[in-house]
Amino acid sequence: MKLKVGIIGGSGYTGIELLRILHQHPSADVHAITSRALKGKKLYEVFPNMHGMSDLTYLLPDDAKLFDCDLVFFATPHGVAMNNASLFLDRNIKVIDLGADFRINDADIWSDWYKMGHTQASLLNEAVYGQPEINRSTIKKARLIANPGCYPTAVLLALKPLLENNLIEPSNIIADCKSGTSGAGRNANQATLFCEVTESFKPYGVSGHRHFPEIKQELESIAGCPIGLTFTPHLLPMSRGIEATIYVDLIDHKANILACFENAYKNEEFVKILPEGVYPETRSVKSSNYCQISVQYVEHSNKLVIMSVIDNLGKGAAGQAIQNMNLMFGLDEKEGLLEIGLLP
Amino acid sequence: MKLKVGIIGGSGYTGIELLRILHQHPSADVHAITSRALKGKKLYEVFPNMHGMSDLTYLLPDDAKLFDCDLVFFATPHGVAMNNASLFLDRNIKVIDLGADFRINDADIWSDWYKMGHTQASLLNEAVYGQPEINRSTIKKARLIANPGCYPTAVLLALKPLLENNLIEPSNIIADCKSGTSGAGRNANQATLFCEVTESFKPYGVSGHRHFPEIKQELESIAGCPIGLTFTPHLLPMSRGIEATIYVDLIDHKANILACFENAYKNEEFVKILPEGVYPETRSVKSSNYCQISVQYVEHSNKLVIMSVIDNLGKGAAGQAIQNMNLMFGLDEKEGLLEIGLLP
Amino acid sequence: MKLKVGIIGGSGYTGIELLRILHQHPSADVHAITSRALKGKKLYEVFPNMHGMSDLTYLLPDDAKLFDCDLVFFATPHGVAMNNASLFLDRNIKVIDLGADFRINDADIWSDWYKMGHTQASLLNEAVYGQPEINRSTIKKARLIANPGCYPTAVLLALKPLLENNLIEPSNIIADCKSGTSGAGRNANQATLFCEVTESFKPYGVSGHRHFPEIKQELESIAGCPIGLTFTPHLLPMSRGIEATIYVDLIDHKANILACFENAYKNEEFVKILPEGVYPETRSVKSSNYCQISVQYVEHSNKLVIMSVIDNLGKGAAGQAIQNMNLMFGLDEKEGLLEIGLLP
Amino acid sequence: MKLKVGIIGGSGYTGIELLRILHQHPSADVHAITSRALKGKKLYEVFPNMHGMSDLTYLLPDDAKLFDCDLVFFATPHGVAMNNASLFLDRNIKVIDLGADFRINDADIWSDWYKMGHTQASLLNEAVYGQPEINRSTIKKARLIANPGCYPTAVLLALKPLLENNLIEPSNIIADCKSGTSGAGRNANQATLFCEVTESFKPYGVSGHRHFPEIKQELESIAGCPIGLTFTPHLLPMSRGIEATIYVDLIDHKANILACFENAYKNEEFVKILPEGVYPETRSVKSSNYCQISVQYVEHSNKLVIMSVIDNLGKGAAGQAIQNMNLMFGLDEKEGLLEIGLLP
Repeated sequence: MKLKVGIIGGSGYTGIELLRILHQHPSADVHAITSRALKGKKLYEVFPNMHGMSDLTYLLPDDAKLFDCDLVFFATPHGVAMNNASLFLDRNIKVIDLGADFRINDADIWSDWYKMGHTQASLLNEAVYGQPEINRSTIKKARLIANPGCYPTAVLLALKPLLENNLIEPSNIIADCKSGTSGAGRNANQATLFCEVTESFKPYGVSGHRHFPEIKQELESIAGCPIGLTFTPHLLPMSRGIEATIYVDLIDHKANILACFENAYKNEEFVKILPEGVYPETRSVKSSNYCQISVQYVEHSNKLVIMSVIDNLGKGAAGQAIQNMNLMFGLDEKEGLLEIGLLP
Repeated sequence: MKLKVGIIGGSGYTGIELLRILHQHPSADVHAITSRALKGKKLYEVFPNMHGMSDLTYLLPDDAKLFDCDLVFFATPHGVAMNNASLFLDRNIKVIDLGADFRINDADIWSDWYKMGHTQASLLNEAVYGQPEINRSTIKKARLIANPGCYPTAVLLALKPLLENNLIEPSNIIADCKSGTSGAGRNANQATLFCEVTESFKPYGVSGHRHFPEIKQELESIAGCPIGLTFTPHLLPMSRGIEATIYVDLIDHKANILACFENAYKNEEFVKILPEGVYPETRSVKSSNYCQISVQYVEHSNKLVIMSVIDNLGKGAAGQAIQNMNLMFGLDEKEGLLEIGLLP
Repeated sequence: MKLKVGIIGGSGYTGIELLRILHQHPSADVHAITSRALKGKKLYEVFPNMHGMSDLTYLLPDDAKLFDCDLVFFATPHGVAMNNASLFLDRNIKVIDLGADFRINDADIWSDWYKMGHTQASLLNEAVYGQPEINRSTIKKARLIANPGCYPTAVLLALKPLLENNLIEPSNIIADCKSGTSGAGRNANQATLFCEVTESFKPYGVSGHRHFPEIKQELESIAGCPIGLTFTPHLLPMSRGIEATIYVDLIDHKANILACFENAYKNEEFVKILPEGVYPETRSVKSSNYCQISVQYVEHSNKLVIMSVIDNLGKGAAGQAIQNMNLMFGLDEKEGLLEIGLLP
Repeated sequence: MKLKVGIIGGSGYTGIELLRILHQHPSADVHAITSRALKGKKLYEVFPNMHGMSDLTYLLPDDAKLFDCDLVFFATPHGVAMNNASLFLDRNIKVIDLGADFRINDADIWSDWYKMGHTQASLLNEAVYGQPEINRSTIKKARLIANPGCYPTAVLLALKPLLENNLIEPSNIIADCKSGTSGAGRNANQATLFCEVTESFKPYGVSGHRHFPEIKQELESIAGCPIGLTFTPHLLPMSRGIEATIYVDLIDHKANILACFENAYKNEEFVKILPEGVYPETRSVKSSNYCQISVQYVEHSNKLVIMSVIDNLGKGAAGQAIQNMNLMFGLDEKEGLLEIGLLP
């Protein structure tokens, strides 16, 4: 029998990506989808790629159908999952939050960055940070998953092998990151109009972005020591894809860095290490759950450059959430997720 | 046991789309892939979305491995399949030509438009025009398929219900068509450089395009009478997608056109008729094998406007080719083809 | 002494294009710019290309500074200019409305299409339709200009030589038109988000678009007889540019159509007729006030195809408005408008 | 009397940008344009934005008309200007090379990076690096200008105030740079096809790019000491624009960095320093000769981030070349260069 899945907040790009992947997933069915604003609308009225493929109708977020589910995904702005997760957990329904509510262990730090009090600090202990390549065994047993942010996913996968092998200086890490515009969501917004974004490129959030404390927390957890991190996000004139170019100082210049990465991920389906001299392109992972990583030592400046690419809606959001679902329910971790990057 | 499939000319966008779909197809395996120019290269060196997913190496087009196949696809420029199809047919290997060599029944007309003599006129009788919604039963029995062009697919699906029900004047059909740039192929070419295409739009081939005789032939075959057709292709600043806006004169203004379309395609998985007042967008079918069609009667000018969208690499090329493969080998016609349009 | 110019509604793409052109105009200065929503903001806060180039501050639309002007442009939604034009006309300040309020001669037709009553029907007689290539002499004497819509400009320039020489059937004209997204304005709107528009193409307004009655009225005025027009707009995944592909039936197949166009526009700086077999691209006129037109007779279907391109913000809006300004104030018609299309 | 200008190698994007700007320049006329491959073609056949605007015909590069010029621009691949500059200098014709031949002072370093011997090492002493904000006075007297590369222009303007005031550690500078695709030129090339570039982003040249030695040389010249530089270029899915995000360590954390930049550029028309908290976007300078710069101190990591944007074809190539021309001929430095960034 298939898993019954609910999606709370299914009107955005993360929502449609969850629906798209689940539609092709052999062991899960979308049982309910909610949106306050779209209540009563057919899914295909909101997402025209679904014409003739689904009869789902948007429900209110308190619809009883959600309580028939085995799992609910929250694809909502921060502040929503926090206040509603217990309703499901108390009924033995597992929860994966694709928003930010359970990503930061410390409620005060969360409140500082998200500008609201955290109402469920007690759940922060239970929530598992859902990066399978880091926390696979705890994810398998979790009831509540904090699905990682898109930038953190790209940066963490790029730095984990180096930090856990003590190969780099932890005090001076620079992550220059670039994201497609789908990361900004589907709400009407002048700043993400086509004519504002096309044929342009810009940094934003340079003095501080909400993914900063999340990246720092997880890097410190891997390294076991404080991390000095500079993180700069930029907006790309394209829909999907994140690239992180990361600059670090090697402790041991004789270490075989490429071998270290290959070894770290040799059993990971979704992380591919590129051959020497080949650099990743975001399109290679578009529409997929894959991450591609490349390393390059720059001799003249003595820096190691690590480059990683993901699809911000795939491995950076919905794909990873379904990878977590697979783990939580004892399914094959790869089920429904083997789509190749769409090229061109 | 899985079908063994060969791809001749696997270096272009049609080739990679065949590979991408077949990679996820439960009943077929790519056994050999060829390219004279790329001989000896790994597939992932040419298409970086394939890193870590395939060990295929490009072979020469005369490699014996091709003769182990059950089916070969030609994804080659016109003139290649014509001269090589018999090699396979003679060994009981079926052939699907994604190029133009077998699309035109009349060798002289073909020669006029393709500027070379047709060397295998005898095969033209045998070749089946591979539009499943038109020729399903003959496709099932065919050894040699002429896979339709991308523009013809979009136009034929939009006009078939009208012509076979004698609802429109056959003498005055205008098809204003727009295609993404992937239709122009992956060869180095100044005209399709990013900077030549982005933020621009243009008509081309206005006085005559090679898809004109193909569309006309098939429309006349459906209608059983001569067709007066004006066909104008345009180039869109995007990768994938074709839209056809077609203008016709209704014979009977009281006919229920929408019902006619719904009826014509009610058993067709891959053709979706949109509700009244909803018009198709190319993105709705991006990466998929679907066609979406909408009809609108324009009262003030007494014209019927039919709009249809496909992915030129999907239903307009590789998707349709695999739909044909499924039919030729008695598989479920939909196998491997139920991917939803990628949005955004 | 320079003309003093005011811009009412200077927060959109038409507004910034007026500012950009006027900034480089030798005989005009922007004296005041208004926006209710942006009151008190600096121009460069709203349009970051203006940093360090202008000290203009947004005023309220009733600021007295407007009454010091020689001319005000309305770059406002329909319904605004109508109710405010007299304030300026009564003070001998000329008015150019880039919106739709004065484009339709018949107040009832206007009301039908724009869904509000017309409050200043008396001004409709006085307003001059500001297409210099059609109405140059009346524009020179006008106090109130209805600046043409973007689609109408592209279509009218493409058909004028044919209609005034009685070369085509007036009853069966099809205009298949495509516009960049800047035509949809700068207001926050889900439908024009980057991720909704990029890599897609769609028709819209097929059953009826507000530019339809405007095009029909002007074509009938040129032809002196009723026109049968089908007009279909489409949205392009790019910022700027309109292309119109127009299908007509020739009355006299022996007419030299190219010569007719060359003759019609031989003294017009801003309309360029392309050589035989060369088709226009929107990028050729991007950022400019030029229109490029090409004609192609299609022998097999006996249709004449006319293709025209403009920049919807240039010749289709702000450029043409400034051309009108030049004419109204006795300046050289070309002043400030000789910018070449930006390529790439 | 106007300057007579020749353009050698006028078939690429730098060539057409020179032509576009010069067409609107009040004191210069393009007298001759050459291209071996396009000999005899009309300019408008190659650049369709020039239809009806110019009668120029491509000449061979040895056409005598070039010797009537006051100045020739080389817009050629490296290796061409080197071997031909003396032909002009010997006739008292000034030369601006937009290629790389004279940018590196040391012929051996040049040869290492450009993979050919330098044939005119003697001219390297005479050539002036044409960055007006650095070398204005020597440019005024120069006969031979090495016009800076696009990346170097963006990086040098961003670092000059810091280095000349000894505000940063010179040993640890990271420049993460992103360029539009026009920087890759107009030659047919698979890697820059529309379908390879759109909706993707990638680093390239990570282990070493030819602009590295140029940036390093000029930074060291400003600083008067060795510089430790890491420079990573990336390719953006857009035509025009470069953004540089630069990470440095402040020596004195109490220095007023913003004031330092404002002071450094207060008399420079073409460098605009943005207010605190406002970050630059490439579109703000598209089609212009402007550079916009922003600085941000990141407290939690103790890094200073400098962001700068230019149009790679404008301030990064043709615009700066014409700024140099103006200086060399005693014209107003700003003449013909005050175009505002095209938005949208």
